[in-house]
Amino acid sequence: MTIKLVVIGGGSSYTPEIIEGIILRHHSFPVTEIVLVDIEEGNQKLEIVGQLAKRMIEKSNKPIKLSWTLDRKEALKQADFVSTQIRVGGLTARSKDERIPLQHGYIGQETNGAGGIFKALRTIPVLLELARDVHEICPQAWVINFTNPAGIVTEALLKHSPHKKVIGVCNIPYNMRYSTAEILNTKPKNVMIEFIGLNHYVFGRKVFVNGVDYTSEVLTKVSQGLDYSPANIVNLGWSKTFIEATSLLPNPYHQYYFQTAAVLKKDKQALEENGTRAEVVRRLEKSLFELYKNPDLCDKPKELEERGGAFYSDVACSLMDSIYNNKADIQTVNTLNKGAIPELPEDSVIEVNSVITKNGPQPITVGALPNSVKGHIYQMKAFEELVIRASITGHYKDAYLAMVMNPLIGDEVGSKTLLDALLEAHKDYLPQF
Amino acid sequence: MTIKLVVIGGGSSYTPEIIEGIILRHHSFPVTEIVLVDIEEGNQKLEIVGQLAKRMIEKSNKPIKLSWTLDRKEALKQADFVSTQIRVGGLTARSKDERIPLQHGYIGQETNGAGGIFKALRTIPVLLELARDVHEICPQAWVINFTNPAGIVTEALLKHSPHKKVIGVCNIPYNMRYSTAEILNTKPKNVMIEFIGLNHYVFGRKVFVNGVDYTSEVLTKVSQGLDYSPANIVNLGWSKTFIEATSLLPNPYHQYYFQTAAVLKKDKQALEENGTRAEVVRRLEKSLFELYKNPDLCDKPKELEERGGAFYSDVACSLMDSIYNNKADIQTVNTLNKGAIPELPEDSVIEVNSVITKNGPQPITVGALPNSVKGHIYQMKAFEELVIRASITGHYKDAYLAMVMNPLIGDEVGSKTLLDALLEAHKDYLPQF
Amino acid sequence: MTIKLVVIGGGSSYTPEIIEGIILRHHSFPVTEIVLVDIEEGNQKLEIVGQLAKRMIEKSNKPIKLSWTLDRKEALKQADFVSTQIRVGGLTARSKDERIPLQHGYIGQETNGAGGIFKALRTIPVLLELARDVHEICPQAWVINFTNPAGIVTEALLKHSPHKKVIGVCNIPYNMRYSTAEILNTKPKNVMIEFIGLNHYVFGRKVFVNGVDYTSEVLTKVSQGLDYSPANIVNLGWSKTFIEATSLLPNPYHQYYFQTAAVLKKDKQALEENGTRAEVVRRLEKSLFELYKNPDLCDKPKELEERGGAFYSDVACSLMDSIYNNKADIQTVNTLNKGAIPELPEDSVIEVNSVITKNGPQPITVGALPNSVKGHIYQMKAFEELVIRASITGHYKDAYLAMVMNPLIGDEVGSKTLLDALLEAHKDYLPQF
Amino acid sequence: MTIKLVVIGGGSSYTPEIIEGIILRHHSFPVTEIVLVDIEEGNQKLEIVGQLAKRMIEKSNKPIKLSWTLDRKEALKQADFVSTQIRVGGLTARSKDERIPLQHGYIGQETNGAGGIFKALRTIPVLLELARDVHEICPQAWVINFTNPAGIVTEALLKHSPHKKVIGVCNIPYNMRYSTAEILNTKPKNVMIEFIGLNHYVFGRKVFVNGVDYTSEVLTKVSQGLDYSPANIVNLGWSKTFIEATSLLPNPYHQYYFQTAAVLKKDKQALEENGTRAEVVRRLEKSLFELYKNPDLCDKPKELEERGGAFYSDVACSLMDSIYNNKADIQTVNTLNKGAIPELPEDSVIEVNSVITKNGPQPITVGALPNSVKGHIYQMKAFEELVIRASITGHYKDAYLAMVMNPLIGDEVGSKTLLDALLEAHKDYLPQF
Repeated sequence: MTIKLVVIGGGSSYTPEIIEGIILRHHSFPVTEIVLVDIEEGNQKLEIVGQLAKRMIEKSNKPIKLSWTLDRKEALKQADFVSTQIRVGGLTARSKDERIPLQHGYIGQETNGAGGIFKALRTIPVLLELARDVHEICPQAWVINFTNPAGIVTEALLKHSPHKKVIGVCNIPYNMRYSTAEILNTKPKNVMIEFIGLNHYVFGRKVFVNGVDYTSEVLTKVSQGLDYSPANIVNLGWSKTFIEATSLLPNPYHQYYFQTAAVLKKDKQALEENGTRAEVVRRLEKSLFELYKNPDLCDKPKELEERGGAFYSDVACSLMDSIYNNKADIQTVNTLNKGAIPELPEDSVIEVNSVITKNGPQPITVGALPNSVKGHIYQMKAFEELVIRASITGHYKDAYLAMVMNPLIGDEVGSKTLLDALLEAHKDYLPQF
Repeated sequence: MTIKLVVIGGGSSYTPEIIEGIILRHHSFPVTEIVLVDIEEGNQKLEIVGQLAKRMIEKSNKPIKLSWTLDRKEALKQADFVSTQIRVGGLTARSKDERIPLQHGYIGQETNGAGGIFKALRTIPVLLELARDVHEICPQAWVINFTNPAGIVTEALLKHSPHKKVIGVCNIPYNMRYSTAEILNTKPKNVMIEFIGLNHYVFGRKVFVNGVDYTSEVLTKVSQGLDYSPANIVNLGWSKTFIEATSLLPNPYHQYYFQTAAVLKKDKQALEENGTRAEVVRRLEKSLFELYKNPDLCDKPKELEERGGAFYSDVACSLMDSIYNNKADIQTVNTLNKGAIPELPEDSVIEVNSVITKNGPQPITVGALPNSVKGHIYQMKAFEELVIRASITGHYKDAYLAMVMNPLIGDEVGSKTLLDALLEAHKDYLPQF
Repeated sequence: MTIKLVVIGGGSSYTPEIIEGIILRHHSFPVTEIVLVDIEEGNQKLEIVGQLAKRMIEKSNKPIKLSWTLDRKEALKQADFVSTQIRVGGLTARSKDERIPLQHGYIGQETNGAGGIFKALRTIPVLLELARDVHEICPQAWVINFTNPAGIVTEALLKHSPHKKVIGVCNIPYNMRYSTAEILNTKPKNVMIEFIGLNHYVFGRKVFVNGVDYTSEVLTKVSQGLDYSPANIVNLGWSKTFIEATSLLPNPYHQYYFQTAAVLKKDKQALEENGTRAEVVRRLEKSLFELYKNPDLCDKPKELEERGGAFYSDVACSLMDSIYNNKADIQTVNTLNKGAIPELPEDSVIEVNSVITKNGPQPITVGALPNSVKGHIYQMKAFEELVIRASITGHYKDAYLAMVMNPLIGDEVGSKTLLDALLEAHKDYLPQF
Repeated sequence: MTIKLVVIGGGSSYTPEIIEGIILRHHSFPVTEIVLVDIEEGNQKLEIVGQLAKRMIEKSNKPIKLSWTLDRKEALKQADFVSTQIRVGGLTARSKDERIPLQHGYIGQETNGAGGIFKALRTIPVLLELARDVHEICPQAWVINFTNPAGIVTEALLKHSPHKKVIGVCNIPYNMRYSTAEILNTKPKNVMIEFIGLNHYVFGRKVFVNGVDYTSEVLTKVSQGLDYSPANIVNLGWSKTFIEATSLLPNPYHQYYFQTAAVLKKDKQALEENGTRAEVVRRLEKSLFELYKNPDLCDKPKELEERGGAFYSDVACSLMDSIYNNKADIQTVNTLNKGAIPELPEDSVIEVNSVITKNGPQPITVGALPNSVKGHIYQMKAFEELVIRASITGHYKDAYLAMVMNPLIGDEVGSKTLLDALLEAHKDYLPQF
């Protein structure tokens, strides 16, 4: 019995996270082979990360075969799991996603805002090609998609590729469980949150500790300033009024929608002080790779945690473990709705608690959305559909619709100006336009 | 055979419009009695308008009995039609609806924005009381609701009063047909527009002249600057990009959502120059009532047209005519969805082409909403539901949700500040809070 | 300005009906050319009917060009309307549709029962081919489908052919209006029935005379034995209990579902006495064609009325007239649901009151189905989908599902026996199997 | 920490099953108190069963307090679980449910057919009263409803009582898993079946063994004659054609719908030979109670298994265990749909795999129903709604609709005759009529 994992974008600075995760779970999820795959431009990073991974595995003494390559098709042969953590255009593109909108007076969010739209437009065609390869070369493999905007990308793959074994993952739901556990003085594994909504637009409707309802305790603490943001998001806090009126646990990304002016101000200030997040990350990465090169380093360095992707490895490994072992436990993933949220199309991808078996995730019903947020959730899904459509057709008019129907942009004139600027800036990575 | 029409808010400056409409259609829709009803505060205006209406009818030689009164219950006896054109709190309240949001940096729109929310909160309880009276005193009567926000108010009445014979009307759809006819050099009666959406959020999906599709001609002209706004809205024009991408005919109120910054700027400037629209209207009304007092005036004065309600009378009289004569013609009204727009709840009120018979309106199916705007239309409906809920419960938290989920407000902190200011300003007319 | 009508199956004994209808409406719907089309096997009948039609037109003095041909593609050039009244396999096939089920103890109904399933299986591929020709040769033309099972066939065309201008018609709704008018002593044009459901499974929910509700009067009379069946159906009457409990006006075909045993007995008896309906019709047709041959006959002979298709001509001509003249009047047709009945798929074909314009029918909303019959209507639609699927795939298993899920068959073993017998009997006309 | 279980209908011959189940699971689900409740007429049985239960518990040495009483309200105090296993009218009523329909030529099925309708009409009012008591006296308690027709009764309670903690259970799904395990030579706990549909109308869509798909193996074996019926149903086998065409695993009750004639014949024959099932059960019960009286009997007697309720105890205890221990495992229960089957109303009760926690069941999404059976499942649900409505209103016309819209009855005249006979026979237990 073998388990082969292929990591697409294997030269990423995140890779040591996932290597560590695989090593730590080896008793229950005994991966036998890992292949790190990257593209020509990432060759150097791939070499550095590959060597570090090799040292980590050697130190662990686990019987895991490791290799790294630029030949994706070769790597995919016999794969059981394919994880994706790519960044089309690299941090340079991300920097543009963040900087150009800010220059036009809009939030340059790399997931749901204008930046996120362009990240999707660049990424979807590349991952569709991957999905087609997977379907041909290793149709039995599960694709675990980390790549943002994870919900949009996963829906695009499920709707437009022949490969249907695709699951989107994000660390936000786990982050929320973790932070909630912290303020309730318990362990994350005891905490169950009823999540409703979409990736980066998910709310917690109920919080249970060992089955007992602690929702109101948690909401009270959140309205008193609990910070449960990941490292890459500065929390602005939530007003008591908002929390009491919605009776929902927001996720860190909700600040973009309900604290727009404050976030815009904060982002502009940050830009002046440190450059955009992409630029901060570039510096972080640079020093991380310096660390990685050290031939004495045989562990994931502590500094990686500042990078912002905490728990990504946990989320991914735990998902693969449950699939492999047919655990039928409950995890929060991005998968087809199938009626779980009756207001959304059955073939939408939602972020939802799901039972995970060897056959993948099956969502647990959410039931009717709360009146307070059903309008926004539906609108975000409709916006996501417009993004996917634009990424496939490459029509200017479809991309414009995605911009003008995004709640962070919306202005019929401003949308065009910003769209034109971003299309120009990213043209090398948008062959479909 | 008698036809009795009761005009609630009969002291309004609009009344001569409706009187003229009744006189002009008397051959097909022979109203036998009109009663103008108003409240104590409107007594003086009622007297002036009543006298003018009396002179108009006398001049027309039509056998219409006219009276005016403050006794609503008495007036409702044997009524066949009850039209509502009230303004709870008068122009003073409207002025606050417009001025206070502007002071906080938000559009003070009296229908869908913060102003509109408060107009709904003040109006719904008063009209629910009227609807209950109608149901008891003249259950056979049709209530023709002109009162803004007309869609929200009509849904509130249909959901929360026992009286189900309520139809909401607005002059915007007719205005759009009229303007379209103008640019196509034809008569409005030859023009049919497929309307989709909600009151003040309705789009035209197709334009037909005598059954022939002229949609693209109209869209082209609109993107070249066609102005089809009613007198009370300054059109900012629509970009070619927006029109081409949506392939939809926007209504004049869409500028609030897609040209927010420009409108805000324009409104602030207008405020400085002329005060808010309420204040302009107050001056207009003052001079109108001076005209009305003239005992030699026996016609609707031309100056009334500047008031902005063009076609209201046409819309209302034409609707009552079709009901009375079981015409089975098609008119655009606000009525229960019943599946016409499958994405919206069946008991939502939508603005929709409907077949009008003695049994009221039956909507013609719209079918699936265009992907481009389905998110926004759904969100607006969800927002409207929040407003209705707040108007019924009087809970602070429900009013807050209506504010924070409105696309023109949205900020979790700003919503509260603005809400508090408006609740304080309007407290005399919000007994439920 | 020309109007060209192509009649597919022009050699049918019904053709004089439609010729008469065209002549009578020539003032408002001035057809300029009629082409009767048939297949080789119908050549002789076509010649007879063509000659009669020619004499009728000559007598009428209307400027209508008439021809008949076996060359369908040639005939379709420049067509504006294409009507279909074909019978694949002729009366011989119909006789099998009726006789074989009866031999196995099932109703041999030629529309919804086992017979109807096989009529659909034989007909759909042939009409799909026609629809593809129409789409290529005269894409502007409206196809008016008379061919039974009209609802199923129309849905098959709308789902599986590129041509979307297809309308299904049936004389049952008009028949119901006509009979209702008779018992209420008024004219059919004054009667409006709210129809709900599917072709041959449609109910009347409300009956209005000039907009006044006469539903309970009509229901009372129906439960007292009113017969409003067309000539080809012997009415068994409806019990007071059934009518009161459902509060709905059944159509003549409902006896197959709610009076199954009695109908089966009646059909078996009729079979012994006169043979199946097909055989009765064959004799009728024989004598009709004898009449048609008479060179002095220049009118539709009275004897045609016994044939059972009363009003078909009226229904079709009235539909084409409203399309041509953009009348926006209301007619009952088989067209896409689009939410009119929210419980059924949006792309289902339903039988529904629709506004008829130059752009075809747009259904008026029906709203939620009555609880009493929603289960049956939904099930019939699901059954119809199975029939369509089988007609396209030609899979044995799909045909079996259509049989076993039909409420008149249903038995898992009996369905197979009957299916095998019918497949064998009709194999010449089922190339897809 | 205490756990109190109240058994309504505690004098039933089934009670030793549940007592044994509680004893066997005491290590993980430590019940501290059991109260058996019955009505005056059941007093004698209650005493016998109570004494046996007492001996069983004593022998087990578990610290469980046991009592029995006719005072339901007293018994409910502090209850944590309330199980219901009542039979309004006793076996005499059941005998009529079975015998009278057979006399009229209909299947006398005690769950979905005419018998089932009357069982529902008698039972729902009694259990609604219980649910109201529970809600007042022990609102924290979960009601575990065993009483047939379990799906209909559970929906009635969830829709019409204030108590929302109600779960319906049936042994059929477990039976199917058990039988499937047997033919696959594995243990039931390794088998997972994707169930779709309604109580006694549930299908298995997929069968997994430890996550591996064995559906086609199972279907093949079923079509070769696998018998997986409970003791109270004689399996007639399923044809290969039916199994292949539907690709679904039927449940034993499906024979009533798809093998109607054969079942009717079998039932009539059984009636002549042994009387109805009720009469067989009465004899069984008589001998069981003779056994129960034996003061030396301290265990559930083996003979109870012939009674037909195998696994009931397992199903119920396992459900309570998972609730108590917040297990988040998956069990098949009757609970609110919430979108799990998108074609059915969100507030329908369906039989569905659900995650069981301290907060009750949350269904796992089923997704779109198979085209082959969606019509029948929808129709059965619509029929169930009619039964519930009739049980609440007590209107003759509603009961008639339930009869005439049931697929096993359906005839408009026969429905009335049978209805009248059953109403007369059961009048003492139908106070609402």
